[in-house]
Amino acid sequence: MIPLDWIAVDWGTSHLRVWAMQGDTVQQTAQSDQGMGVLARDAFEGALLALVEDWLPAGRITPVLACGMVGSRQGWVEARYRAVPCTALADGLTRAPTRDLRLSVHVVPGICQAQPADVIRGEETQVAGFLALNHGWDGVLCLPGTHSKWVHVSAGEVVSFQTFLTGEMFALLSSQSVLRHSMAGWDAAGFADGVQQGFDRPDRMMARFFALRAEGLLHGLDPGTARARLSGLLIGAELAAAKPYWLGQRVALLGAQALSDLYAQALSGLSVPVTQLDATEMTLAGLSAARALLPESEDRGCVN
Amino acid sequence: MIPLDWIAVDWGTSHLRVWAMQGDTVQQTAQSDQGMGVLARDAFEGALLALVEDWLPAGRITPVLACGMVGSRQGWVEARYRAVPCTALADGLTRAPTRDLRLSVHVVPGICQAQPADVIRGEETQVAGFLALNHGWDGVLCLPGTHSKWVHVSAGEVVSFQTFLTGEMFALLSSQSVLRHSMAGWDAAGFADGVQQGFDRPDRMMARFFALRAEGLLHGLDPGTARARLSGLLIGAELAAAKPYWLGQRVALLGAQALSDLYAQALSGLSVPVTQLDATEMTLAGLSAARALLPESEDRGCVN
Repeated sequence: MIPLDWIAVDWGTSHLRVWAMQGDTVQQTAQSDQGMGVLARDAFEGALLALVEDWLPAGRITPVLACGMVGSRQGWVEARYRAVPCTALADGLTRAPTRDLRLSVHVVPGICQAQPADVIRGEETQVAGFLALNHGWDGVLCLPGTHSKWVHVSAGEVVSFQTFLTGEMFALLSSQSVLRHSMAGWDAAGFADGVQQGFDRPDRMMARFFALRAEGLLHGLDPGTARARLSGLLIGAELAAAKPYWLGQRVALLGAQALSDLYAQALSGLSVPVTQLDATEMTLAGLSAARALLPESEDRGCVN
Repeated sequence: MIPLDWIAVDWGTSHLRVWAMQGDTVQQTAQSDQGMGVLARDAFEGALLALVEDWLPAGRITPVLACGMVGSRQGWVEARYRAVPCTALADGLTRAPTRDLRLSVHVVPGICQAQPADVIRGEETQVAGFLALNHGWDGVLCLPGTHSKWVHVSAGEVVSFQTFLTGEMFALLSSQSVLRHSMAGWDAAGFADGVQQGFDRPDRMMARFFALRAEGLLHGLDPGTARARLSGLLIGAELAAAKPYWLGQRVALLGAQALSDLYAQALSGLSVPVTQLDATEMTLAGLSAARALLPESEDRGCVN
């Protein structure tokens, strides 16, 4: 058996990742494609056990801390949104029903904002992890991804945030629109051009897309340049729209390396000071902070 | 047998439509889903004959005038682009190879523009039809669709044009992105709101999309309002980017009724005088004008 205090779970729409934790140390990890999107409510426990059953010590309850879409209305159990301004985490995690007596599953709630309407589910845990590791930090977090998030943090609280569909738009336009015929690979110079065009004239963005196709047909535009320029256009336009977030602020980027690098490059071009951190590390730090909120009786691991 | 002088063909990526013509009068029509996108080069003739074979008189050649993606590099025969400034149509239609001696197929070439790079294939025939019916007309044509086109016409020539992916973006975002969970039906008030938001602040468009989802989750936004607002946002942003085209001009809208109505509504809100015309009628008028360009020997219908 591996030494195990608790289990960390990041459960999104399309993936499930689990970590066997001793204190803040990862002992083992596993993942599957059993995301929230493919699971009926009564299938979550089985999907989790399929990955962690071998880890579970007999004769005691192992706490499981989970974040992400697992807590949505279509998830294992609905963990209701908390409204800004609020801390990234708070007491009152939502308990998911389990049949296996060795599991005690606690789901982190998302955060909502009434105006402009917006929701976060999953990224709040990364924010909490970042703040646990950077006490007293004031500024802006950017979490690039399928849906990128900009989060303004002050005095330990999430003040406001905004979601952009940038990553999903890139995937749809580059893989499913007519532009797909003109795109493959990646050329870094194309990205820089796109960022500049998207940022300087976001109002012209709608007019730029088809030109990527037409330049391929007429002028033999390199498919890697076209794909990178599309990415740059979208990220540049996102940065233009997110300007109220980053202007005059320091920005911490929490994301997967490759995408985070693109945002860092784009922001550096705007003279915004940027720090990059790994999203998975922040998630684990956040789930660890969530575990610290459990009543001692829930975390000691006695059979109830 | 129906009386038949020639056959008009509109052959796009996903559809094939044919009309049996006597002079400028439609005698009969047919269509199939045998678009350019699903056909290998040697399958075009068969796809056409499947619809028109019963119409063909014996013992003579019937001219067929075709426009659209049938003339692309992946089509039946490549009908090379002509460069602006140019008339919408000109001599030198491209002959497609046929085995059936009863057919003489002529493909209308598209139009290209070097800077900003852009191409038209199919809509040039609608423009030609419009100009054939409106001699001496100067102004701007807007052709809404999957890829909407803005075309500046002066002194009988296409001066410049620009393509927008608006229709395709709406289809992808409303049917395939995360927004699909929050959209169904149509509420006209949502469209007007969206147009105003998209037109007034196109630079904020990237920040508006996810709010459609969040307003549904948090405030119960009506799915019909959400879908119409998305359409309005995109069309509003297109109008902002296309402002150099319509500002101070009269605009003729050539499109399918429902979509054309939306553009007319949006443009009227900007005090732009608008005329609406049916896209199919313009296509037929344009193909009829193309037929008039054939050498008499090609159009008389003798067996060669």
